[in-house]
Amino acid sequence: MVESWSFLDTVESNFRPLVVIELAKGTKEETIEWFTKRIVDKKANGGAQLLIKPLVMENGVENIYLVGASHLRLLLGAETVGLVKECNDNSMRTFTYSSRKTFKHFADDNHNFLTMAECQYIIKHELENLRAKNEKMIPGYPQAKLYPGKSIVRRLLTSGILVQIFPLHDREELKKLSHSWYGRVKVGYQPLDDIRCYFGETIALYFGFLEYFTFALIPMAVIGIPYYVFAWEDYDKYVMFATFNLLWSTVILEVWKRLCAILTYRWGTLLMKRQFEEPRPGFHGALGVNPVTGREEPVYSSIKRQLRIYLVSLPFVCLCLYFSLYVMMIYFDLEQWALDYHKENESNFSSLMLYVPSIIYAVVIEIMNRIYRYAAEFLTSWENHRLESSYQNHLILKVLVFNFLNCFASLFYIAFVLFDMKLLRQSLATLLITSQILNQFAESLLPYWLQKRYNRRMRKRTCSKKTDMDLSLAEQVNMEKEMGTYLGTFDDYLELFLQFGYVSLFSCVYPLAAVFAVLNNITEIYSDALKMCRVYKRPFAEPTANIGVWQLAFETMSVISVVTNCILIGMSPEVDALFPDSKMDLVLTVALVEHLLLAIKFIMAFVIPDKPRDIQIKLAKLEFESLEALKQQVRASQMQL
Amino acid sequence: MVESWSFLDTVESNFRPLVVIELAKGTKEETIEWFTKRIVDKKANGGAQLLIKPLVMENGVENIYLVGASHLRLLLGAETVGLVKECNDNSMRTFTYSSRKTFKHFADDNHNFLTMAECQYIIKHELENLRAKNEKMIPGYPQAKLYPGKSIVRRLLTSGILVQIFPLHDREELKKLSHSWYGRVKVGYQPLDDIRCYFGETIALYFGFLEYFTFALIPMAVIGIPYYVFAWEDYDKYVMFATFNLLWSTVILEVWKRLCAILTYRWGTLLMKRQFEEPRPGFHGALGVNPVTGREEPVYSSIKRQLRIYLVSLPFVCLCLYFSLYVMMIYFDLEQWALDYHKENESNFSSLMLYVPSIIYAVVIEIMNRIYRYAAEFLTSWENHRLESSYQNHLILKVLVFNFLNCFASLFYIAFVLFDMKLLRQSLATLLITSQILNQFAESLLPYWLQKRYNRRMRKRTCSKKTDMDLSLAEQVNMEKEMGTYLGTFDDYLELFLQFGYVSLFSCVYPLAAVFAVLNNITEIYSDALKMCRVYKRPFAEPTANIGVWQLAFETMSVISVVTNCILIGMSPEVDALFPDSKMDLVLTVALVEHLLLAIKFIMAFVIPDKPRDIQIKLAKLEFESLEALKQQVRASQMQL
Repeated sequence: MVESWSFLDTVESNFRPLVVIELAKGTKEETIEWFTKRIVDKKANGGAQLLIKPLVMENGVENIYLVGASHLRLLLGAETVGLVKECNDNSMRTFTYSSRKTFKHFADDNHNFLTMAECQYIIKHELENLRAKNEKMIPGYPQAKLYPGKSIVRRLLTSGILVQIFPLHDREELKKLSHSWYGRVKVGYQPLDDIRCYFGETIALYFGFLEYFTFALIPMAVIGIPYYVFAWEDYDKYVMFATFNLLWSTVILEVWKRLCAILTYRWGTLLMKRQFEEPRPGFHGALGVNPVTGREEPVYSSIKRQLRIYLVSLPFVCLCLYFSLYVMMIYFDLEQWALDYHKENESNFSSLMLYVPSIIYAVVIEIMNRIYRYAAEFLTSWENHRLESSYQNHLILKVLVFNFLNCFASLFYIAFVLFDMKLLRQSLATLLITSQILNQFAESLLPYWLQKRYNRRMRKRTCSKKTDMDLSLAEQVNMEKEMGTYLGTFDDYLELFLQFGYVSLFSCVYPLAAVFAVLNNITEIYSDALKMCRVYKRPFAEPTANIGVWQLAFETMSVISVVTNCILIGMSPEVDALFPDSKMDLVLTVALVEHLLLAIKFIMAFVIPDKPRDIQIKLAKLEFESLEALKQQVRASQMQL
Repeated sequence: MVESWSFLDTVESNFRPLVVIELAKGTKEETIEWFTKRIVDKKANGGAQLLIKPLVMENGVENIYLVGASHLRLLLGAETVGLVKECNDNSMRTFTYSSRKTFKHFADDNHNFLTMAECQYIIKHELENLRAKNEKMIPGYPQAKLYPGKSIVRRLLTSGILVQIFPLHDREELKKLSHSWYGRVKVGYQPLDDIRCYFGETIALYFGFLEYFTFALIPMAVIGIPYYVFAWEDYDKYVMFATFNLLWSTVILEVWKRLCAILTYRWGTLLMKRQFEEPRPGFHGALGVNPVTGREEPVYSSIKRQLRIYLVSLPFVCLCLYFSLYVMMIYFDLEQWALDYHKENESNFSSLMLYVPSIIYAVVIEIMNRIYRYAAEFLTSWENHRLESSYQNHLILKVLVFNFLNCFASLFYIAFVLFDMKLLRQSLATLLITSQILNQFAESLLPYWLQKRYNRRMRKRTCSKKTDMDLSLAEQVNMEKEMGTYLGTFDDYLELFLQFGYVSLFSCVYPLAAVFAVLNNITEIYSDALKMCRVYKRPFAEPTANIGVWQLAFETMSVISVVTNCILIGMSPEVDALFPDSKMDLVLTVALVEHLLLAIKFIMAFVIPDKPRDIQIKLAKLEFESLEALKQQVRASQMQL
């Protein structure tokens, strides 16, 4: 079908499949022909100049295509996407084809200069930037409209002709990686650089943060253990623990920024220029002229969006929060009712009934979280954000606020309305431990088991006893295309965020929370690694320079935890006993200490530089060089005059 | 003396003096010859390629030189410093000589394309960037060492050979400006664009902020007047006023950022690339290699500097703060003693004695502020900061903290230790009004009067009765070189900062403060304008995109004022009466309201975008264009392959 291989600058034997394109079954011939022609066409003709090959399945159906690219094409693509690589003099620079010889490990025959994840990212970028020229619609599908500059792949996806695009796993690399990552029980760091090479920066940064966070919790856990072992109840020890916790959480969040800068500098993403963001796939509006690009594309009034946000989304979120609080009150009523019932007719049945409200509430919380998540996604998508990043930020904000309230409202109620520290400790422990176990199970182990069962059935059907390594390419593609899609690090960060809440918000009441968090995170690393390597399709690499809005979320949580801990300590009977005469003095002292701690937090955040000195110097050096180059250019043009 | 005019690309008749260089009397001939040679020498030979002309005084002494430049040279210089100008399509772009035709109002014979302030800024930049080649010392002065790359002008300044460099006033322009600025009593805005053209962006931005701040205070003042007129004492009115104040101060600071972006976008400084900062003149250290530039220059270990900051400066500042509090306590003791004395022997003398402590304290505060300022300058200079910006930030921080405590400590003491609201109101009024009167007098009127007297004497000596306009160039230079040097906007901002403190910290006690602030600021605009135009030498223009660290200082003040106002309202007897049973409830309510207000403040600061939408779009457009240009470049280089 693809007849025009002739003008490609490579022979077919060189073809290395990188990305899989799955079209809908029964896609019209003319559409396929047009699409593949555009993919292989020369850049000058508006094509992507990639290689494409149909994958012939055993049943003869031909709806899957493999995309690759010549080595030269990939290098040029690396320049287009602005990849930053290490030079021979150990500095990081933006890769350009003309300066390729100055880069470390570059050789014309070294096809490992770009990692496979980078190659796949380049191909994805090139495919997404394949734009309509003067086509008015997708050939064969008059209802799928096109306009000059519209991304073809996005239109194919939204009109259902293109089922999915995903990068292929590299079985050999994956085996090596999974062996060094989670294959053996070992004490040591994760192979973050290898993870980054295989899965890209966003995912590597998540695992880096998870590891860092686990290490950072260890001091808290170590200090927390004796409280449990010796059953310490002295208020001064709790105060010390809480104070340490609060300052420590500020320090770890600041230090993470520095560590993140070190990692992303090494990976080149710290220096990577932000690409101009295209509208997200779901964005719609009347065709108009974008004031920034001057191109014709759908435009949507920013005022309309603001109105939707403030007049619909905001009230809706508030309503949901109110509803969540209402459900919580019902839970406490039920709890009370169960307690009364148990007191009245003490029986086995009644003591069992004591657990019913908690179980119902836990299930309801989980259900509400899920329903709300759908509602939030629907609303945010209805707000019609032009950029994926702005969509993500609004979604994260909505989900965060609701999850925060849903998870912690009952604890706040127990602590600050019922004043029942014992119940608080008990609820905290129950919530923390059950949520951790449920999460690990639902998130990694269950999908892993399902995936394994499916694979086994698949293999039985093909009547072969081959291991993963011996699979033919067709079999591999067939297997991977059925795997689930990894939806991004959102849920993983959310889990860590809530865990951070459990650990820090009420840390002076339950020092053992840090211990559970550390234990959970160690298994979390393994189960998440398993999930990435075995359960899901390989995700496309996403360059990123930091953990984005999550940094802000964690910092906000640590500010809130200063307030809650100060109040909790102030409410403890031991501190109470220190001010026998005047409750006023107690409250004033607590308020003063709280303000002091907050002030110290902000000063510390201000004083600790966000980037280590050597990274600062390297960045300054690059900036200086570019300024000098500019000056040189100016001088040269002046000399000519 | 300057014999080599020949190779300059202009005739002497074109010479327009822009900048004055004053050398020390008796500077050696060979030094002058070398220096002037370097100034006029071609760029290719490491010169500045400017024009220089000795100014022959009546007494025949020849130590003053006038510097100018050809039109072409200035245009090339504008490209070097990265000036941003408006194009024909109303967009702002970095000026380049090759694209000069696309800029608005550009014509080869239009010598007003660059404002005089811009020309002077360019000449200053070129002079400061005149660097030693292989000279080991300044010819004639073996003790004034040079090394390759060292700024010649800076070495001449530090070794006392160069007395000063300053830009010349343009008498005609100045007259026009001062007429439209403060020449007539009018209601309306200041001519900010004209101020910017004459004095540069830093000063124009200060006046813009002053004006904005005055307008922003008017609502507060208007709401504050009835409290005085009707002697309102109801707590609910005070609460309303304070709440309005707190939210209002957040709004005005956020809106200022947007206004500032509009102004600096129009002036081109918002887009101006940060130049690489050279070491500040006072910076010293062993000759080493700068890790950023790779050039040989003095280096000073950052760890040593940190040690000096944290082990010497920080303890010293703390000591000063302690001392200031100690002096305050003595003042209150004296006050008490005077009161007792007055009670015991009631006489005219004793009632006079009542005022003595306040007067002594006011004088002592002023003296301490001045001594501390010197100490802070000495310490910050001893900390040996490499960059002027870092020096300024450390100095501002030191001075701010001390001034804050010195000015407000007694008020805090009266409010939160003595609980005497009447005394607080009285002290606040006294402090605010006297400080305003003193400032206006010491800062503008006194220097103006001195300057005027000096000018009169000067003119008498030259026995002429000419007005300012008829002065010969030599007379003008002679007069201007004796004028004081404007030391920057530091003191002006500091005054506004303290005023903001008086208005917002205790606003619920003394609503009239805003009225006095507005009145003061209106006269302040006039007296500051007078000061700039008549008292001081013309300052060099300094491009800037925002008010820098002052934004942070004002925001911090508004956060502190939330805390103080909440406490003050909580302490008022009217609020007290609302909670007759339990002081606890009162304190808890106040704390809750305070936290809510702080949360609202932060959310507001987060939600209000820092730049207006149209500026955002314009910036995005420029970024998009540069990305497109880069892509085009990449594509072009790929086509060639």
